[in-house]
Amino acid sequence: MGEFELIRHYFAAAPCAQGGEGVALGIGDDCALLDVPAGERLAVSTDTLVAGVHFPHVCDPLLLGQRSLAVAASDLAAMGATPIGFTLALTLPEVSAAWLQAYAEGLDRMARHCGLSLIGGDTTRGPLSITMTVFGRVPAGQALLRAGARAGDLLCVGGALGNAAGALPLVLGERQAEAGLSAPLLAHYWSPSPQFALGQALRGKATAALDISDGLLADCGHIAKASGLALEVNLAEVPVSPALEGFLGVEAARHAALTGGDDYVLAFTLPPAQLSSLRASGVPFHVIGRALDGEGVSLRDPQGQDITPQQRGYQHFRETP
Amino acid sequence: MGEFELIRHYFAAAPCAQGGEGVALGIGDDCALLDVPAGERLAVSTDTLVAGVHFPHVCDPLLLGQRSLAVAASDLAAMGATPIGFTLALTLPEVSAAWLQAYAEGLDRMARHCGLSLIGGDTTRGPLSITMTVFGRVPAGQALLRAGARAGDLLCVGGALGNAAGALPLVLGERQAEAGLSAPLLAHYWSPSPQFALGQALRGKATAALDISDGLLADCGHIAKASGLALEVNLAEVPVSPALEGFLGVEAARHAALTGGDDYVLAFTLPPAQLSSLRASGVPFHVIGRALDGEGVSLRDPQGQDITPQQRGYQHFRETP
Repeated sequence: MGEFELIRHYFAAAPCAQGGEGVALGIGDDCALLDVPAGERLAVSTDTLVAGVHFPHVCDPLLLGQRSLAVAASDLAAMGATPIGFTLALTLPEVSAAWLQAYAEGLDRMARHCGLSLIGGDTTRGPLSITMTVFGRVPAGQALLRAGARAGDLLCVGGALGNAAGALPLVLGERQAEAGLSAPLLAHYWSPSPQFALGQALRGKATAALDISDGLLADCGHIAKASGLALEVNLAEVPVSPALEGFLGVEAARHAALTGGDDYVLAFTLPPAQLSSLRASGVPFHVIGRALDGEGVSLRDPQGQDITPQQRGYQHFRETP
Repeated sequence: MGEFELIRHYFAAAPCAQGGEGVALGIGDDCALLDVPAGERLAVSTDTLVAGVHFPHVCDPLLLGQRSLAVAASDLAAMGATPIGFTLALTLPEVSAAWLQAYAEGLDRMARHCGLSLIGGDTTRGPLSITMTVFGRVPAGQALLRAGARAGDLLCVGGALGNAAGALPLVLGERQAEAGLSAPLLAHYWSPSPQFALGQALRGKATAALDISDGLLADCGHIAKASGLALEVNLAEVPVSPALEGFLGVEAARHAALTGGDDYVLAFTLPPAQLSSLRASGVPFHVIGRALDGEGVSLRDPQGQDITPQQRGYQHFRETP
């Protein structure tokens, strides 16, 4: 048995690979087989993370295992889907038992946290790269799309923003901070928690949704464009964590919250009539603005002045050679 | 808009990305949405091809586009699935418009040949690598698994074997041959045709099936192990193409047919009582042996002598630095 065959057996033995709800056939045949209940649709998303582009060449493989799955799973949450499973395409330059064991441990933790079964994949030799394809199910007609927001809707987010962008200098070892500040930021970067409970609570309530991966303003631009309207963000309402403010200061923390990427927090539009019923669901969220006729995304200060910065999507970090 | 955003728009405009049967929502949102009819299951498979491992760094991108999808789609055929769609995770070192146009053209040709819609994916910067995840549907209980063969079943294959392995020295430019020999071999390598018609004809008839990617003997070993029995291959019955015999000679052609990889031809076991009804379906296939009590795979010469070689799975070519 070759070393890559051994790796496949190794992943196949992980707790998250032992099947689960919706998995009719898991790892080991030409295909996996999934059950999708009548009246539901299968939601599918694929994400690739490349070493040196999406994560540092040198990093803790356990944390990488957690993050690589969470980033992909967040797209399921953003559709309001119930998690089923995922495939892992792992390309490795060499086989290190210690690296694999830690990576698989992190992957398995996040998989079980999300309720996702590992159902298949491929393991190949080459420069380190990870492609996840994630699967969920959502009642037909209730998936949360980017199109569908209406003028008058409230603009909301599922939690504090900017933590991952703020964590980047810590991740890259460019800066240090006391543990009280660095720990929550690094936790958000390495182990984002896909907002499945929020996404499912939004079914039948939200008119549009996505997960923030390019930065709040850029991603709001995607909803605005897909829905054919304008979105207005009230700067004072954008939630920022105490750790981010403590680490970066108020101004830079706000900038990170508006333009930083990799947050994997949901942004959505909600008709005002749904506000009380969503609050009653108990899942936390923040109203940060509104949808109105027009186009594009604007930012308002507490006095209502337009202070929209030049919008730029988040660029993944890229190591200099 | 960044160059990789442009690439995404480029693929989204391809004919194969305009939706199709079973695709409720295609490219452009956080997830794609697939419809799986009641009583059917979703079949899923993921394959990664890495430059320098699974294909030469320098090759025709149109041919690569065809091959990269066909290799993955073959797993759907091997389950007896009806094709629905695929996601493409493409990692590129740089953006070349000519390369992308040709790659997308080849991909689109194969997608339409197979009846597969491009439903999503990811495009990232990094060393050239392609991960495809393919989706199909198959009636519950009728998927063709590796387990299920019974003693007394006939062992069959869907066509001539060894062509792709025979083509390898031509692909790598190590040898040349007259066009009459090289053209069919190269066509088989660069544009294998997933055997969907055969796979679907085998539903309810075959007891086990897979597609030959590691070589006939190694893949028969997978069926034998999963089914808990032995398989016997009659060397004289193994189909070999005239082009392969002409290029390699009879002995080396037989060796390629037995141990060469990348054929993407189906191998399956069939109860003798199903033989006439499968023949009546009109899809060509060849009976090459039988299943019997025991374990492992043995090879017999026309006199019935055991001439089993030392079995080795196919190793993907790896360029020397």
